[in-house]
Amino acid sequence: MLTRYLPVFDWARRYDRATLTSDLLAAAIVTIMLIPQSLAYAMLAGLPPVVGLYASILPLIAYAIFGTSRTLAVGPVAVISLLTATAAGAVALPGSPEYLAATVTLALLSGLILVAMGIFRLGFVANLLSHPVISGFITASGLLIATGQLGHILGVKAKGDTMVEQTVSLLRALPEANLPTLAIGASATAFLFWARKGLRPALVRLGLAPGLAALLARTGPVIAVTLSTLAVRMFDLTLAGVRVVGEVPQGLPPIGLPPTHLGSWATLAPAAFLIALIGFVESMSVAQTLAAKRRQSIRPDQELIGLGAANLFAAFSGGFPVTGGFARSVVNFDAGAETPAAGAFAAAGIALASLFLTPLLHFLPIAVLAATIIVAVLSLIDLDAIRRIWKFSRFDFAALAGTILVTLGWGVETGIITGVALSVMLHLWQSSRPHIAEIGQIPGTEHFRNVLRHDVVCAPEILSLRIDESLFFGNARAIEGVVQSAVAERLEVRHVVLNCAAVNGIDGSALESLELIMHRLADAGIALHLSEIKGPVMERLARSDFLTHLSGRVFLSHHEALAELSPETTLACDTAIHRPIDAARVFPAKPRRPA
Amino acid sequence: MLTRYLPVFDWARRYDRATLTSDLLAAAIVTIMLIPQSLAYAMLAGLPPVVGLYASILPLIAYAIFGTSRTLAVGPVAVISLLTATAAGAVALPGSPEYLAATVTLALLSGLILVAMGIFRLGFVANLLSHPVISGFITASGLLIATGQLGHILGVKAKGDTMVEQTVSLLRALPEANLPTLAIGASATAFLFWARKGLRPALVRLGLAPGLAALLARTGPVIAVTLSTLAVRMFDLTLAGVRVVGEVPQGLPPIGLPPTHLGSWATLAPAAFLIALIGFVESMSVAQTLAAKRRQSIRPDQELIGLGAANLFAAFSGGFPVTGGFARSVVNFDAGAETPAAGAFAAAGIALASLFLTPLLHFLPIAVLAATIIVAVLSLIDLDAIRRIWKFSRFDFAALAGTILVTLGWGVETGIITGVALSVMLHLWQSSRPHIAEIGQIPGTEHFRNVLRHDVVCAPEILSLRIDESLFFGNARAIEGVVQSAVAERLEVRHVVLNCAAVNGIDGSALESLELIMHRLADAGIALHLSEIKGPVMERLARSDFLTHLSGRVFLSHHEALAELSPETTLACDTAIHRPIDAARVFPAKPRRPA
Repeated sequence: MLTRYLPVFDWARRYDRATLTSDLLAAAIVTIMLIPQSLAYAMLAGLPPVVGLYASILPLIAYAIFGTSRTLAVGPVAVISLLTATAAGAVALPGSPEYLAATVTLALLSGLILVAMGIFRLGFVANLLSHPVISGFITASGLLIATGQLGHILGVKAKGDTMVEQTVSLLRALPEANLPTLAIGASATAFLFWARKGLRPALVRLGLAPGLAALLARTGPVIAVTLSTLAVRMFDLTLAGVRVVGEVPQGLPPIGLPPTHLGSWATLAPAAFLIALIGFVESMSVAQTLAAKRRQSIRPDQELIGLGAANLFAAFSGGFPVTGGFARSVVNFDAGAETPAAGAFAAAGIALASLFLTPLLHFLPIAVLAATIIVAVLSLIDLDAIRRIWKFSRFDFAALAGTILVTLGWGVETGIITGVALSVMLHLWQSSRPHIAEIGQIPGTEHFRNVLRHDVVCAPEILSLRIDESLFFGNARAIEGVVQSAVAERLEVRHVVLNCAAVNGIDGSALESLELIMHRLADAGIALHLSEIKGPVMERLARSDFLTHLSGRVFLSHHEALAELSPETTLACDTAIHRPIDAARVFPAKPRRPA
Repeated sequence: MLTRYLPVFDWARRYDRATLTSDLLAAAIVTIMLIPQSLAYAMLAGLPPVVGLYASILPLIAYAIFGTSRTLAVGPVAVISLLTATAAGAVALPGSPEYLAATVTLALLSGLILVAMGIFRLGFVANLLSHPVISGFITASGLLIATGQLGHILGVKAKGDTMVEQTVSLLRALPEANLPTLAIGASATAFLFWARKGLRPALVRLGLAPGLAALLARTGPVIAVTLSTLAVRMFDLTLAGVRVVGEVPQGLPPIGLPPTHLGSWATLAPAAFLIALIGFVESMSVAQTLAAKRRQSIRPDQELIGLGAANLFAAFSGGFPVTGGFARSVVNFDAGAETPAAGAFAAAGIALASLFLTPLLHFLPIAVLAATIIVAVLSLIDLDAIRRIWKFSRFDFAALAGTILVTLGWGVETGIITGVALSVMLHLWQSSRPHIAEIGQIPGTEHFRNVLRHDVVCAPEILSLRIDESLFFGNARAIEGVVQSAVAERLEVRHVVLNCAAVNGIDGSALESLELIMHRLADAGIALHLSEIKGPVMERLARSDFLTHLSGRVFLSHHEALAELSPETTLACDTAIHRPIDAARVFPAKPRRPA
């Protein structure tokens, strides 16, 4: 019980010296990497850089206690920071105390929502976010974020709310670009792009061990930050107009109840819900991928509690919403982290950094932070995935394209909501046209197949339909329509046999529809039979009185149904290998229409 | 093509004298029945009674031209009138010209929405309204409407917005009840309740033919209206405080562009969408039930156009939203209507009534109209259906109960939206825990069954899972989790074989999850195989490159997979009838957990 809700007790009692060494090493590397990332994502969220450090201390400790992943590294991430900036920007001006209060409230609310979802086991709600929607959302957010940061690279201010407006304003401001800033920003961007793919092989060529090279290759942002800070300091580039981070307050984050107004809770709740949901989906995906590599497992409900606790701790230490990040978790994993203690040690590292290292950050150019963000978010855009989805299914592509377009044109919140609505609608549209095949007997066998695909035999007075879907409210009415049209076209039909071999489930709407189908068929003098019902469906049907007043019968096999209802045809067909079949009983390939 | 979009050309060219006679007779009966109903539902919608007549003329002609049902009778109905009153009441005061403009706008917008849905074949959107939600909504609306009308029966004014407030205000006002009004209202209610069940047998006992008795039994409201009007007139009951309909303007409805402001369109659009959707679902259900009795079929997309046209015509003749009504359609059907011309003739009948009969309606007591409404809506409440849903499925019951409670407590629009959200969520919740069974071979056969239900044999290094659901975004992540937990628990597993015999479809999210499962298994040194994939699923998978880089293989049958991957076990098992099976290969009933 205790280890169920506090996974820390599971791994802590088996903690030993070897694990400690691995965890400490991983923590050191993650700490170095987290510093520029935290500063950058705080800037993206519209907050002072130091808040990024604050959000990377206590939340890591909270996740270490409550989380189920051994190697997930939580902290500020790009998409969540963008959502935070959008939601907080709608209620307050960036830089104002109200803005900081709004981001703290968002962390608090999304923490509460995540914990509540964990306790009530509501993690399934995240399933609303289908892969194409998530993929489209990340692509669009990446483009939005990158455009927003371009101004920092150029040393000008991007104006406007939409991407188009911002791009236009950037193009107009191009002549006023600050050249030293542009030089630093562009070279940092180029270096970081190269470092993603080229640094590791370069280090290997320099003679480093492949494992060490892979780890060091991840420190591209740290190298860029260090070198550019030194350059600004040495050449006094601030005088040439290069904007730097400036004074960063030294010390640990303020602990305490966040200064939040209950009045703003209702306004921020929908955004907090989105932040919670998207953060959870992103984090779960990273956690499961890493856990699989070591055959560990992740408990989604406890993950909700772990991430919720991380956000609550963020709120109580003056931070903003956090979640499990992909890049840092992979570094943590590759650096050999074995338990969540590595996260706690990284938290200690960041705490030390915010106590002692902040003066060194004074001359860090904003343009380099922007470059870090741009490279990180553009690398999340997976054009190949978009191409694959296009090829695989036009429906999924529609959901993806809709999410991208609406996110770019109307903003992140509208985008994600549209995406969810679209994918639910498209799913309903698809289930509203369930695959229903008329089936006939393959002569000489007891097999039944689609009349349109195989040479089969049917008795004219019997309509055999195989429903290739579970029955639920999304397709219940469509099945009414299909059965009704089929019997309206074939006036000689006296029996309808529904083959339910592919029906995995049935809900109340579908039961109601089956009742209606039965009564409507009875009004036309036709009996309704069912065949090959699966165990769980049969058990469910037995809870209603549908089977007791069924106009026809329930048959174990479709062959049994036909043998009972039309023994003559069936006999002819079973022995077809030996005898010719009465031609009149061979069903024509196209259904006949009334004259 | 022409008969596709104008079904009138289909039946009109075969129209003959016999059909004319049947249609005229049916129209006469429906006209008589429609008059009190139209007045009552206009009152329920907060409109002058004559508007009810207006809404029963041109819409019927429009439906006769565009609709596909031969016997559906359109006009004002209770639930739609309530929705109209709620939506219009939110933007204007009942009785004001703005209120009338709002109801006309609602008819116009819902007409446009229905026609657009018909043209773009979006009828599937109505599937969002599951049977339990519709059932709950009608029950709750019935209670709301009945409570709202009780004041008219008592001769007092019900105050408050919610049912509880109205009930309290009615109880408080009880001492001030107008006794003559109460006497008329209560006796009309009692008579109408009795007439629903008792009038037909009573008429048969009086010697009428059963068919005629059944028809006359439906005229209960007409009898109540006639008798009570005569009573009020003869005994001058208006002087005793009995409220009557009063002056009803004589003449045909005003034809022309409705006086509507574009500004109000955005405000009224969501309500118009709900009115369109609920009206369509209700109407389709009636139309299909009646069509089935005569083996006719209904085309949903054309029905949308037919109902849309009816609402547009209602808007252009000063009416309010209409749809196909259950009671009047059944009367039309029973009275022998054979074509939609019966509807057009009934329209002519109502037009004559509004030209010449309106003076007779002056002394019609409001209490009797309220009694008509109360009896009609309470008869729609099907407590037995609620009991059946409770027994059949707790999920469906939750959707139903949620819809009832929210409709009663927060109003009709919030109620229906909550119901839809609830049923989508519950569906997702259910699909987020798909039925996945570990399967093993039944010794001596090539059949594979659930290890928990049957005595089966498994090879320890092979995990065979049968997925009993179509794969889509709702359950894709759950399947990742199940596979991951299963292999995390069984460290000896080297192959995972997913049996897809029950998988009817797969979407992009599920493909993505299969990719992830494959890569994660590969990271742990496990191969992923698939077996018994259905044709459509195979075709879909072939559009991606999943199959080409699958770590394992695709097998036609599960037996083939096992025979290939663990020939030893399979051989032992195939011949089990003759030889004992190696005990070590018999899978223990409970999955082993790691120590």
